Amino acid sequence: MERINFSRLKQAIETSSEIGKIPDNGLCRLALTDEDKKMRDIFKKWMEDEKLATRVDDFGNMYGRREGTNADATPVLIGSHLDTQPQGGRFDGVLGVLIGLEVIRTLNENNIKTYRPIELVNFTNEEGARFEPPLLASGGLAGVFSKQFVYNIADRDGYVFEDELARIGYKGSENNRIEAIHSFLELHIEQGPVLENEQISIGAVQGIKGMSWLELTVKGEGGHAGPTPMTMRKDALMAASRLIVHIEEKSKLFDQELSVTAGRMSLEPNVVNCIPEEVVFSLDVRHLDDDKRCHFINELLNDLNGMAAEREVEMKTETLWEVDTTYFNSHIVSQVVKSAEMLGYTNRKLYSGAGHDAKYMNNMAPTGMVFLPSVDGKSHVESELTLDNDIEKGANVLFDSVRQLAEMEKPI
Amino acid sequence: MERINFSRLKQAIETSSEIGKIPDNGLCRLALTDEDKKMRDIFKKWMEDEKLATRVDDFGNMYGRREGTNADATPVLIGSHLDTQPQGGRFDGVLGVLIGLEVIRTLNENNIKTYRPIELVNFTNEEGARFEPPLLASGGLAGVFSKQFVYNIADRDGYVFEDELARIGYKGSENNRIEAIHSFLELHIEQGPVLENEQISIGAVQGIKGMSWLELTVKGEGGHAGPTPMTMRKDALMAASRLIVHIEEKSKLFDQELSVTAGRMSLEPNVVNCIPEEVVFSLDVRHLDDDKRCHFINELLNDLNGMAAEREVEMKTETLWEVDTTYFNSHIVSQVVKSAEMLGYTNRKLYSGAGHDAKYMNNMAPTGMVFLPSVDGKSHVESELTLDNDIEKGANVLFDSVRQLAEMEKPI
Repeated sequence: MERINFSRLKQAIETSSEIGKIPDNGLCRLALTDEDKKMRDIFKKWMEDEKLATRVDDFGNMYGRREGTNADATPVLIGSHLDTQPQGGRFDGVLGVLIGLEVIRTLNENNIKTYRPIELVNFTNEEGARFEPPLLASGGLAGVFSKQFVYNIADRDGYVFEDELARIGYKGSENNRIEAIHSFLELHIEQGPVLENEQISIGAVQGIKGMSWLELTVKGEGGHAGPTPMTMRKDALMAASRLIVHIEEKSKLFDQELSVTAGRMSLEPNVVNCIPEEVVFSLDVRHLDDDKRCHFINELLNDLNGMAAEREVEMKTETLWEVDTTYFNSHIVSQVVKSAEMLGYTNRKLYSGAGHDAKYMNNMAPTGMVFLPSVDGKSHVESELTLDNDIEKGANVLFDSVRQLAEMEKPI
Repeated sequence: MERINFSRLKQAIETSSEIGKIPDNGLCRLALTDEDKKMRDIFKKWMEDEKLATRVDDFGNMYGRREGTNADATPVLIGSHLDTQPQGGRFDGVLGVLIGLEVIRTLNENNIKTYRPIELVNFTNEEGARFEPPLLASGGLAGVFSKQFVYNIADRDGYVFEDELARIGYKGSENNRIEAIHSFLELHIEQGPVLENEQISIGAVQGIKGMSWLELTVKGEGGHAGPTPMTMRKDALMAASRLIVHIEEKSKLFDQELSVTAGRMSLEPNVVNCIPEEVVFSLDVRHLDDDKRCHFINELLNDLNGMAAEREVEMKTETLWEVDTTYFNSHIVSQVVKSAEMLGYTNRKLYSGAGHDAKYMNNMAPTGMVFLPSVDGKSHVESELTLDNDIEKGANVLFDSVRQLAEMEKPI
């Protein structure tokens, strides 16, 4: 039976790892930057070399289409994203796109025909590190975000999504959006420790945990650091630090499924000899059970409001983003397990703690994901690593699953 | 007896309050910016209008000299600084310079001759908000900082002091530095609540509390906010928040004279869905008793190191800046009290919690300061306010004290 060509795949990963490279082996390839454009140009060329019909939609999503024997059949869609975090790794998102490309290359070199067309996709701005929220272009495609909302988003320096998309030459046409899709299968690194801890190579992802993004603003009173006695202060950072300690304590007491992260913080005026007047920080709250997540957040905010009132600082809360738990298509989950079993690879079903483009694609088509182990469970860091052996296994699982899906004559 | 002209002084304050104005009535006039240049140009013209002989030294300090009857006598120096915090008020520093100018104007309009020359000064970059450390140019003048050290300091965007000084046209000559000084008297707002609480108009400042600036770096482990269970994390912000809570608790237990501020903080990577890998924050520690300050810091760092080790995060500490308590000249302190008494104004002696150019000038000449009340003890905020009535009183005290000092035939 045909297998993917690992050394060819590895070469593609090496090429990608040079574009936006940062000192400790990671990548800084933020969406719609010059680095993103450079990677997109290379990816476009690679798709053209494989005789894929390429196109770009109005969100900058890039597609390459390989025809099936039935031109009218809806396509099997595979892919992920090529953008990264500001200090991200070489695998997050990238593997899903490049293994997708390797699947196409393997089909081509073996002259394998499929009943359904297969389309390869690179989604724009999955990370949300530059343009918030994340999953922006898959969300736009799936109708979650309006085109105008997406186009108007500005990064921290005031650069606007639409302008930046045009600037790098990837503002395509609305007519190029993919519409009818038979099935979507995204391969991705786990970004967590579950597979590694259990020494399992293949994760068949059943869904994505729901999450809420909150922004908390703590407003106290500024002033010069010297003269104001500590007992007379309303120091916003001292107050925020107490809130964060409480957040950690309460989260750890809740249950093992809950995770809470305060990832971003800013101070005003942020000067050594000024008492912090205002602190703004984010909270990322995730749980498989949507009710438990909402319940936890309500209780937590209640606690925090009480603590803020006690310290005589103001607290404001804003929900930046909120999504419920996503459940993927059970047929596709089973197909991933079957492919892994057929190939003799260790595997298990699991839920994703992180969001992925597959979350929104699940609104458009039966969807599933393949997870590969992350060494030490790390991602969104330069030291992010997935071992060669697992990458090769993942590529063969994707290859087999895609072939099976592309031979299905009926919708799932 | 002659008095200062308050409406003329008020007009000068209003003019200054327009240059670098920000929405809530404050000023953003960082050192060596275009706003700083604009204010300097106006101040230079004002000095020239009073027939002062103006000059600029190599640190950008601006001087205006009014001759005395004895041309060989060393001058009485008065003044402060015209730069502000990024979200500063209209009075901090500015009052000392503009009341100094009003003293000159009053002398001139009354044709008052003094035995000693009087020089008016505007020190560069007192705040240290743009180029750290603060008191940079008075420190350079007093030989605390070398010229090369001062010139090479870069702001957060990489702009270098020397280049910016030249860019705004205020890179003067080393020959223009003031050398022999009879006495230095700086008027400033208190920036604290003591005078207001006791309903006193004039503070005769006996010295400046010693202080240490530290920078603490907490290094944990990054990763994606979703998949990593909270129990497996080494979240640098959660750890830093605990340290800050301990810092506050320990400080409040120490004594009323101690103040500790964590004014500046930055996170890496500072993204909503990334576990903070590194947190860097500043500590500003002040106490009148140098031994107690050092003792407190040693004990505190010992505690924090223990807490960091317990949480398995790394902690590094760097001392950014450290100065012992400064004691001003007792004759000048007494003169300020005498002038206030003569004018019938409430007054008291006190120590400053904040640093001032007078700290370094104290190394060069007998030095003193006049403090005026700050409403609600606030400064380094836009709502900083000193009442008209107190400004007028302060100007008359400075006028009288300067006249007395300028008539002294002998050194203090």
